Amino acid sequence: MKLATLRTDGTTRAVRLDGDVLVDLGVPDVGALLAEDGWAERAATATGTTYPVEGADFAPVVPAPSKVVCVGLNYRNHIQEMGRDLPEHPTLFAKFADCLIGAQDDIVRPVETEKLDWEVELAVVVGAPARRARGAEAEAAIAGFTVLNDITCRDWQFRTREWLQGKMWDSTTPVGPCLVTPDELPGGVRPAVDVKLLVDGEVMQSDSTGDLLFDPVDLVEYVSTIVRLNPGDIIATGTPGGVGHARRPERYLLGGETVVTEIQGIGRLENRVVKEKSA
Amino acid sequence: MKLATLRTDGTTRAVRLDGDVLVDLGVPDVGALLAEDGWAERAATATGTTYPVEGADFAPVVPAPSKVVCVGLNYRNHIQEMGRDLPEHPTLFAKFADCLIGAQDDIVRPVETEKLDWEVELAVVVGAPARRARGAEAEAAIAGFTVLNDITCRDWQFRTREWLQGKMWDSTTPVGPCLVTPDELPGGVRPAVDVKLLVDGEVMQSDSTGDLLFDPVDLVEYVSTIVRLNPGDIIATGTPGGVGHARRPERYLLGGETVVTEIQGIGRLENRVVKEKSA
Repeated sequence: MKLATLRTDGTTRAVRLDGDVLVDLGVPDVGALLAEDGWAERAATATGTTYPVEGADFAPVVPAPSKVVCVGLNYRNHIQEMGRDLPEHPTLFAKFADCLIGAQDDIVRPVETEKLDWEVELAVVVGAPARRARGAEAEAAIAGFTVLNDITCRDWQFRTREWLQGKMWDSTTPVGPCLVTPDELPGGVRPAVDVKLLVDGEVMQSDSTGDLLFDPVDLVEYVSTIVRLNPGDIIATGTPGGVGHARRPERYLLGGETVVTEIQGIGRLENRVVKEKSA
Repeated sequence: MKLATLRTDGTTRAVRLDGDVLVDLGVPDVGALLAEDGWAERAATATGTTYPVEGADFAPVVPAPSKVVCVGLNYRNHIQEMGRDLPEHPTLFAKFADCLIGAQDDIVRPVETEKLDWEVELAVVVGAPARRARGAEAEAAIAGFTVLNDITCRDWQFRTREWLQGKMWDSTTPVGPCLVTPDELPGGVRPAVDVKLLVDGEVMQSDSTGDLLFDPVDLVEYVSTIVRLNPGDIIATGTPGGVGHARRPERYLLGGETVVTEIQGIGRLENRVVKEKSA
């Protein structure tokens, strides 16, 4: 099942993707859907208004998650090619709901950065409350997966020793277009799928989520040890090699590019980078 | 004016402190109040139901802020006594709404930590939407101030290079009891007041907010450059010297202690530390 949050008539609606139509689920967005007990049944059986997929305008799949927890280095190949040891614990940092944009929205390059960079990430969407979840409970807390481009201002990220200020720029992080339930994916709650990011058609990142050191279930277990996870919360699982900052010469988004962020079987973000008119 | 969020009859109410009574403001919490245009006038003139201050049970002053942005090293004395240079930019990290507890709630020590520590902090509460606010606009975006104890699991903070996982433990961070408007404070939106933290009556931290390197207005300007600030958002301005981790020998909260976190003219948190029964 594929679920999304559609912008229509100045508001949003949670929808199910059925071939070339989107079926209204009777709630304003996927966050509101996931907060209901029995959301999967409701989503699977709804027969409301339909909208065409063609030309659909997607909001962030969960527009206002209570948490966006992101993971740093998490692809084995990338860690090892950097000559580092595999870490014992995941590195975590945060974004906020106000950072998120839709799957085809423009990424507006802030005037304050010279180093706007990309990061393709598999994102977990939480579907049930979880605290100190283990095993089957952690698996069951995963509603599904979506695509996230963890857009980062590298100059701000490295101003101080904490990354947050490079990661929390307003309206820069596309997420969506759909939440895809684990039953649709090879590997289920531990999907083994290709991730890819292209800038103006040139492949910048390409790896498989099978290479994740901490898989989605591990991350639900780890994060929920620390803090409760609520339906709609997002865990971004980290990015493989190939970011602009690690290239020689370094390469950043200047404005005018089109960035495609794609995960096999899950979805595709396509975002133009535009210069901000003025601050 | 002093505003708080009162727990009563299984729900919460925004209230104004008038001597020994709390006056109901007609909305469920201070976050909902601040989201209204003209909140200050409404709060000042409300004449609803009253509740006694004595025995009042305070919720986090804003129970569900969209952001809690925290500042690292920010007291000049403390930075210099550590032999560091004054930083050019504030160090920022995050907490989430689910980390917050009320002014007299128990701090439940997670079974997973051996190094539970304290940090008294002056916290800014945002009262108007702000993005790239400067000068008078940044000043006007400050609804007032409250007290926050940035409880931290040091062992988790230093597991990786990002602090978040030591900072976002569920229901560990007391904040409140009141929001105090700037007109009540010496220095107004840049208050110069004493901050203090005591464990079982022993003074552990004692300094003045006049020593802040980045003052509240600077921080509203800086954070709002990056991401919009919404009414109810909280910026914790950092802690002075005297935390348990920096003591020799190191000293941590084990359970059984009472922690008092106090800021002159703003308020006082008093929290028992209790051992978690089981995870």
